[in-house]
Amino acid sequence: MEKTYTHQTLKQFVMRVFLKMGCLEDQVEKAADVLITADLRGIDSHGVARLIGYVQLWEAGRVNTAPDIKVVYETPSTAVVDGDSGLGLVVAPVAMKVALDKAKSAGTGWVAVNNSNHYGIAGYHAMEALKHDMVGISMTNASALVAPTFSMERMLGTNPIAVAIPADKEPPFVADFATTPAAYGKVEIQMRKESPVPPGWIQDAAGNPTTDAFAAKKGGAMLPLGSDREHGSHKGYCLGAIVDIFSAVLSGANYGPWVPPFLSYLPLPDKPVGKGIGHFFGAMRIDAFRPAQEFKAHMDQWIRRFRNAKPANGHAKVLVPGDPEREMATRRMQAGIPIIEPVVKDLQGLAKKFDIPFEN
Amino acid sequence: MEKTYTHQTLKQFVMRVFLKMGCLEDQVEKAADVLITADLRGIDSHGVARLIGYVQLWEAGRVNTAPDIKVVYETPSTAVVDGDSGLGLVVAPVAMKVALDKAKSAGTGWVAVNNSNHYGIAGYHAMEALKHDMVGISMTNASALVAPTFSMERMLGTNPIAVAIPADKEPPFVADFATTPAAYGKVEIQMRKESPVPPGWIQDAAGNPTTDAFAAKKGGAMLPLGSDREHGSHKGYCLGAIVDIFSAVLSGANYGPWVPPFLSYLPLPDKPVGKGIGHFFGAMRIDAFRPAQEFKAHMDQWIRRFRNAKPANGHAKVLVPGDPEREMATRRMQAGIPIIEPVVKDLQGLAKKFDIPFEN
Repeated sequence: MEKTYTHQTLKQFVMRVFLKMGCLEDQVEKAADVLITADLRGIDSHGVARLIGYVQLWEAGRVNTAPDIKVVYETPSTAVVDGDSGLGLVVAPVAMKVALDKAKSAGTGWVAVNNSNHYGIAGYHAMEALKHDMVGISMTNASALVAPTFSMERMLGTNPIAVAIPADKEPPFVADFATTPAAYGKVEIQMRKESPVPPGWIQDAAGNPTTDAFAAKKGGAMLPLGSDREHGSHKGYCLGAIVDIFSAVLSGANYGPWVPPFLSYLPLPDKPVGKGIGHFFGAMRIDAFRPAQEFKAHMDQWIRRFRNAKPANGHAKVLVPGDPEREMATRRMQAGIPIIEPVVKDLQGLAKKFDIPFEN
Repeated sequence: MEKTYTHQTLKQFVMRVFLKMGCLEDQVEKAADVLITADLRGIDSHGVARLIGYVQLWEAGRVNTAPDIKVVYETPSTAVVDGDSGLGLVVAPVAMKVALDKAKSAGTGWVAVNNSNHYGIAGYHAMEALKHDMVGISMTNASALVAPTFSMERMLGTNPIAVAIPADKEPPFVADFATTPAAYGKVEIQMRKESPVPPGWIQDAAGNPTTDAFAAKKGGAMLPLGSDREHGSHKGYCLGAIVDIFSAVLSGANYGPWVPPFLSYLPLPDKPVGKGIGHFFGAMRIDAFRPAQEFKAHMDQWIRRFRNAKPANGHAKVLVPGDPEREMATRRMQAGIPIIEPVVKDLQGLAKKFDIPFEN
């Protein structure tokens, strides 16, 4: 019951929706590109499936569609950007651009962002660095869904980290991952199928391990990467915490359990400790460390050696981070992007609401 | 059968050994401090237990005890340091100092190091930033012991990451962890007891999961943080890979399976792709993002909120990264450092070899 659309069709539609919301002409193309790139790369939970969520946030008065995004604090290699409650999809590209510009003059650039909201896939922003022969880094906090090791309470978001590293003849190294064992989207799939989740993904409301996919909705929580103490969940907790602190304590955004939720029908936490949600971006010029061509030749060698590592029993090959998403993007650029029925319905609803064409 | 020594006794002894090896007078105090801080913080595998390993590396001609450590490439916020085959314990403090100095002028400082070897605990170097109101970051590659997801071959070290973040009235946040489910030292303990390891720590020589603690010695490998694909081992693999690339491809050190082993009796890999092993250090001035006092007050609030999170069933409290190691250090500063018998024998052997006093 799913339908397939070209990425151009979906992107045009997203741009029309953002324009109807009052977003600025010169910002909608980039924002739509962030969203559709998620669909192209196979991260369906972060693509057009979320468009209705952004619209609902705007309807709830929590998005400023004409934000005055500006640097409010800086040094030669750092800046803090105030997103002025803009869409994260709009704020993040502006902030990443500041990081790239800082890196051009100072060797590296590091930008913490406050007063933003959901920014799409972390990897998109990190990959912006690649065309400048830079390493790109991107992270964001999110509303609390994850319980630290030994905690009954949800204290952290799934707080993703992305790192993109250029190579020469080989495609780039692109890591982009939530600091949990699995994405929340995979738990949602199990709920839809009324099937259990593997042990080590979630805990129930008392903080006990469970395989009940619905537990996270009934007061439970997702677990940090590592799953339990014996398998290093305290390390996943450290990672989620570092993302939270870099994104929000450095920038002046909300952190930990104070991060406002993406879902517009959920209440905002009491007594905010900062403004909106936070992101953190980094850009490092590779020729700030060694001649770019030399670095890239060694990255080619790194990538080839890892891709040619002997596979373990029952596995076809060893992957380099970014391989599956790049292959998916190549396929979907050609064959189109399959959209599941509930999302098609959401998009049709938005077309009607805004009186814009969707299916051509 | 263990004996307890004061940290002063152990530190004096380590300094005497390094002096006998020909290390420079003005470098041995710091190097010994790095080593003893591991014992104080309870990371016994990285403290005096490793002293004999450093001596053996020196005897094998793989350590230059009078290195000319220098910056060989730089921009306002970056540098590459050549460790000139010095002890990592000597090279790392010099390189971290370069990062701190860069941060003073440019806001942040990022230093990649080549031509080094084992640098002690990652956390020590990150914590150097705290006294300057900076965030400290430290990572290092190491010889291959970990198999990437789907790989039969060992391709990465246990590649640790440390991040230290200052607070005001609360003690600092200090994360310091290998990018594997458990430290290799814990596998060694199970081997000594001839007991199995938990599933999810190691794989056998064919790449199959195993609980045989000896498997890693018989051609097997440690697994990345996450343990298996279903629990996010590809994310642990990404983390280990990022540490490897930042430490060695940026700096010009050896990477992946080419990293030389710490154990002097193991052969060096064929055809090196760089010089020695690599480290990567970062320092970010907190007042490069917002007034330091403001940041530190929010870190206090972050730390208190997390420490007061409701504990899960069966757990007494939620910890903040760095809590257990700091409590251990306080205890061992007072009560002394217990050293197991085989290590006591090693130290006595070194005392005899170098004709220096050990037990007073």
